[in-house]
Amino acid sequence: MTATPVPGDTLIWLDGAETSALPLPDRGLDFGDGVFETLLVKHGEPLYPDLHLTRMLRGCKVLSLPDCTISLRRNLKAACSAIAARGWHWASLRMTLSRGCGPRGYTPPADPEPRIIISATRLDDFDLDMSAPAKLHLADVRWATQPALAGLKHLNRLEQVLAAVDYTKAGLDEAVMLDQNARVISVVAGNLFVVTGGEILTPVLEHCGIRGTRRDLVIRCWAPAAGLAVRESDIGIEQLQEADEVFYSNSLVGLRPVASFGRRRWSTHPTCDALYRQYREALT
Amino acid sequence: MTATPVPGDTLIWLDGAETSALPLPDRGLDFGDGVFETLLVKHGEPLYPDLHLTRMLRGCKVLSLPDCTISLRRNLKAACSAIAARGWHWASLRMTLSRGCGPRGYTPPADPEPRIIISATRLDDFDLDMSAPAKLHLADVRWATQPALAGLKHLNRLEQVLAAVDYTKAGLDEAVMLDQNARVISVVAGNLFVVTGGEILTPVLEHCGIRGTRRDLVIRCWAPAAGLAVRESDIGIEQLQEADEVFYSNSLVGLRPVASFGRRRWSTHPTCDALYRQYREALT
Repeated sequence: MTATPVPGDTLIWLDGAETSALPLPDRGLDFGDGVFETLLVKHGEPLYPDLHLTRMLRGCKVLSLPDCTISLRRNLKAACSAIAARGWHWASLRMTLSRGCGPRGYTPPADPEPRIIISATRLDDFDLDMSAPAKLHLADVRWATQPALAGLKHLNRLEQVLAAVDYTKAGLDEAVMLDQNARVISVVAGNLFVVTGGEILTPVLEHCGIRGTRRDLVIRCWAPAAGLAVRESDIGIEQLQEADEVFYSNSLVGLRPVASFGRRRWSTHPTCDALYRQYREALT
Repeated sequence: MTATPVPGDTLIWLDGAETSALPLPDRGLDFGDGVFETLLVKHGEPLYPDLHLTRMLRGCKVLSLPDCTISLRRNLKAACSAIAARGWHWASLRMTLSRGCGPRGYTPPADPEPRIIISATRLDDFDLDMSAPAKLHLADVRWATQPALAGLKHLNRLEQVLAAVDYTKAGLDEAVMLDQNARVISVVAGNLFVVTGGEILTPVLEHCGIRGTRRDLVIRCWAPAAGLAVRESDIGIEQLQEADEVFYSNSLVGLRPVASFGRRRWSTHPTCDALYRQYREALT
């Protein structure tokens, strides 16, 4: 399963109205003051919308943003109907919630009027086979230590941008990102899993990183359904290199096996295969 | 010197053209992928433009953004001419450089076309007296540890937003922000200085925080001109509480003395007074 955008096939809405521009000023632009989600949409149906909305609302609470559940659901539904009407089989949908406009300076308005910006991009029709194994290197930039924001998908994403610049230049598919203490945390756009001695481990995300919706599904649903268990753990870089298998998850590819990390190569991915079968069943 | 915006008196330009909206998608909104500066403008003349542009370009280098010096200068000049033409005596001017549009995902386009967004807000005419001493508390949220981005004024500013929410609710003027190791770093919108035993100390900003233009001027110009020296140092919270004097700096107020931090009060600010005289001389 790959996720290749069809150039030009993008729709954007602001608070439900199709648009191509954002009124200024906007605190999302000014300070990254907001949260977002990326959903996979199949035949006009968003996948796992409740998981995405739950994380978004967790972010709203931490950022003291009002509970926008009702308008988020309404906007999401309208966007997905428009996607269905266009006949797009697959689309990636980004839903951004910004605190909206406000006076100069860091202090938000007392009664913010958050804005919901949805952009949907048509994806090339793809089969449901697992993506080809990914080639990774180690990112130079590390996740910042910030327990107050760890796990959330907020709009402050510069570290991932910097890491993406480098792996793209190197002609690779992704990069392993560490925390400030050299613990393995994630790839740029996904959560990491390593298989060691029959056990699936995934990094603890208490001080940085994003708690992915598919990470949650692996732990709670797909691994148990395949008779496997996942344990959250601190993971060192040697542990990653010595693992029997490595894979990552995100909302667009589901699960993707890792072919290489620097010089280390993996040729089989039995655990990822087994979990992907669960994911695929849920998809169809 | 206070900086109170005149409601409604705001002008916004995108790449030199007056506008009220930003074309979407924009990576500044999507990821905080860009940098910004806040300049004080007096009778249509920006103060210390070279210091601001130097920091902005340092940010561009770290973010692998192209060198936009020429267009930044041109846009700044045009905006300041428009401010002068309006007869605004004082204005705050925010200049944002976003990486601009790009395809879905963290990876930036290979040839980005950065956007320059300038917004200018008229400030109420003010005398040049020093601002009234500020009341501070300790912010709950701390700066993230991120040496790769420390010192820069990029668009990922959620920590300061969270701290500003709290001090505003508490009816205060500012908040002291610590790093993850409980060292004093700054206030929300400014750099901190503490005077202890005749010595001016200011926090080391190697792992977080923003290197302010006025911090730079205090260290290099105003303190030496007043026969004083500033030393960068790790500063603990007890050291702040026991200091003889505390003040902070930013581009809009210049320097502002601290009246209180929690229960601790300071009634005189001789060092801040002396430095402010230097600042004021430079202003007039």
